[in-house]
Amino acid sequence: VLYTSSNCIASDPLPSWNDGTARDAIIDFVECSTKDGCINYIDPQDRIAVFDNDGTLWSEQPVYFQLMFAIDRVKEMAKEHPEWKSEQPFQAVLENDMEELKTSGKEGLMKIMAVTHAGMSTDEFAEIVHNWITTAKHPQKNMLYKDMVYQPMLELLDYLREHEFKTYIFSGGGIEFMRVFAEEVYGIPPEQVIGSSIVTKYELQDGVPVLIRQPKIDFIDDKEGKPISINKFLGKRPVAAFGNSDGDLQMLQWTTVGKGSRFGLIVHHTDGDREWAYDRESAIGRLDKAFTEAKAKGWTIVDMKQDWKTIYPEK
Amino acid sequence: VLYTSSNCIASDPLPSWNDGTARDAIIDFVECSTKDGCINYIDPQDRIAVFDNDGTLWSEQPVYFQLMFAIDRVKEMAKEHPEWKSEQPFQAVLENDMEELKTSGKEGLMKIMAVTHAGMSTDEFAEIVHNWITTAKHPQKNMLYKDMVYQPMLELLDYLREHEFKTYIFSGGGIEFMRVFAEEVYGIPPEQVIGSSIVTKYELQDGVPVLIRQPKIDFIDDKEGKPISINKFLGKRPVAAFGNSDGDLQMLQWTTVGKGSRFGLIVHHTDGDREWAYDRESAIGRLDKAFTEAKAKGWTIVDMKQDWKTIYPEK
Ligand SMILES: [Ca+2]
Ligand SMILES: [Ca+2]
Repeated sequence: VLYTSSNCIASDPLPSWNDGTARDAIIDFVECSTKDGCINYIDPQDRIAVFDNDGTLWSEQPVYFQLMFAIDRVKEMAKEHPEWKSEQPFQAVLENDMEELKTSGKEGLMKIMAVTHAGMSTDEFAEIVHNWITTAKHPQKNMLYKDMVYQPMLELLDYLREHEFKTYIFSGGGIEFMRVFAEEVYGIPPEQVIGSSIVTKYELQDGVPVLIRQPKIDFIDDKEGKPISINKFLGKRPVAAFGNSDGDLQMLQWTTVGKGSRFGLIVHHTDGDREWAYDRESAIGRLDKAFTEAKAKGWTIVDMKQDWKTIYPEK
Repeated sequence: VLYTSSNCIASDPLPSWNDGTARDAIIDFVECSTKDGCINYIDPQDRIAVFDNDGTLWSEQPVYFQLMFAIDRVKEMAKEHPEWKSEQPFQAVLENDMEELKTSGKEGLMKIMAVTHAGMSTDEFAEIVHNWITTAKHPQKNMLYKDMVYQPMLELLDYLREHEFKTYIFSGGGIEFMRVFAEEVYGIPPEQVIGSSIVTKYELQDGVPVLIRQPKIDFIDDKEGKPISINKFLGKRPVAAFGNSDGDLQMLQWTTVGKGSRFGLIVHHTDGDREWAYDRESAIGRLDKAFTEAKAKGWTIVDMKQDWKTIYPEK
């Protein structure tokens, strides 16, 4: 695509998007809010766009990819933990018994998160995630997880940035998990990637300061947590918000109610052939209340099957 | 000052700094870390400088200015609270009885913070702070608090930014308090101003989303809290840190231990005539452990009396 942010008009800034109301709405918003003199003009310093991650920028089925990371880690770490063979929830993980794993509930999940996400320094954790994200593959698609990002959304991120929008992630996923790959995969630098966090503890080890990850939740960046962390991390209100589930409802409310030109968008997973199809009944990425409100408030709804020419980037 | 970030050499980037080791150390660091091919070169995206606020960018005596804000607010709000005339700690505030106020301790302080900093929306709080910061004066200096910023440090902030450093505040002060004036006063936008926070709660009021400030501490951005919040908000390690007290010790440790060129600086308050003179024994802005460590590790120590030609900007 020969697109520049100068006076040239792009031939097509969103080549993986089919013609339709979603594509039109995006282009209308971006063109009108960035053309000097337009009634909907937005000052460059206020051009802040916030994105959910799971299900909005990359896939999230059959379970959130960060849980797949935790499962892979348990299997890797099991070499040094022979006792896990007969200890739940680890036994269920090692035996790929997802039904048994579900019965261990939130408590079991916290045990898995504690051994896989805590007890090491922030630097060590980043290295573990880096090793995983560059090698681990999705069991059904046989693709690297980091290749299961949405090509149309990558184009949208670029399109916004070419128009001087600053792009942020606000995700229920782990802040230090996503930061490892968000810059390479999405072009979003660490300080613009915000997510759920666990408590860290400052320690001097032989005089060298380290931050040790603790098995304790600090903040859940989901639902009401999203506007709260947007306010904390940004100190100003975004003008555009992009999500896919009820976890994004409050972020979209918070963003779209502000003065001036605003944009809200929901990615609706309708493509069971190329990706997955799910909405109101799904345990992962449920889109129910936010779906209803999107329709009532006129937020843009992307129909993945209709609106996207391709799902994942071609390699 | 005719200084540009182009090829021109500045006549003097730090006109309010006297010649001396502190000024030399700053210029050496900035020149060497930004000259291509230099052994200490730092990539532009890694040029992150973090500043404490109270006592580093503006004055903090006889008490932190945010406490003066709280005291002024109690007096303002007392019109609607006749019961405060005989209720501690409010009575002590209304009677300017600082000794009595001290006896109310941390509990009394929390009561004052609760009524002055919580119970309103984030937007309402910002407006209250804005009204105060544009009118309130320091009782001894008879200056607007926002004019009690250090001219040499303003020049340093500009000098760093001209060399493509991104400047951040990490302060024990309130994040939403500082963000009201930091952009105008320091040229630092809201998302680069981080401080202590209270919990906020997301609510819909007649369908309009608001964040209501709760009388509950969320995070104290001081001492060990500084590297923790630097890691959370930035996701990378700064290369330069500027502070003035023991509250900055861990931030300086965390910053200066990284690979490559690093810079740590402590502002030492030595000027009892033009500002205030205090260090190891002071209740406000105590500089004791960090002073000892600064000397041991070769961090730059600014002697305000010797190193600064002027303290505050000329009006
Ligand atoms: Ca999602
Ligand atoms: Ca200080």
